[in-house]
Amino acid sequence: MSVKDENVVFVGKKPTTAYVFAVVTQFSDGQNEVHIKARGKSINKAVDIAEIVRNRFVQNVDVSIGISTEKLMGERDEINVSCESLSTYSTLI
Amino acid sequence: MSVKDENVVFVGKKPTTAYVFAVVTQFSDGQNEVHIKARGKSINKAVDIAEIVRNRFVQNVDVSIGISTEKLMGERDEINVSCESLSTYSTLI
Repeated sequence: MSVKDENVVFVGKKPTTAYVFAVVTQFSDGQNEVHIKARGKSINKAVDIAEIVRNRFVQNVDVSIGISTEKLMGERDEINVSCESLSTYSTLI
Repeated sequence: MSVKDENVVFVGKKPTTAYVFAVVTQFSDGQNEVHIKARGKSINKAVDIAEIVRNRFVQNVDVSIGISTEKLMGERDEINVSCESLSTYSTLI
């Protein structure tokens, strides 16, 4: 993970709580923004993570959301996969 | 479905293409904005729908996304369910 990706959390197959913990830790460490990124079937988990972080752990968080499509190599052909990026910003600066 | 909900597509268990068709039809019928709403595990399908609509069927569409949490009655307790609303706007007016 490069320095640039420090405040990015990529959502995969771990339990939701693992990613919630990762995001909350970044905010406790002084980050003002943390980006939660997910592809395909992990997108609903990413939304859960953002909602749990802002409702239970970190106060005054704004969320800005973008979606896009990436082309990945499937078994035979290129396949289109939807991606979602949830940028969470602490408004307490 | 009330008149107010005319331009809202609620995503459930039907195939993705059914909802894509519903959204595209609304735009063809002259709507300038269509809202795609989903809860829980349907959220990733809603993102697919918005991406397919804007990449393949309707040109010049902007998407604005909001997330929230709703409380639903589960079998025993109230459960929190994440919701996502993708508002698609035609910028050709």
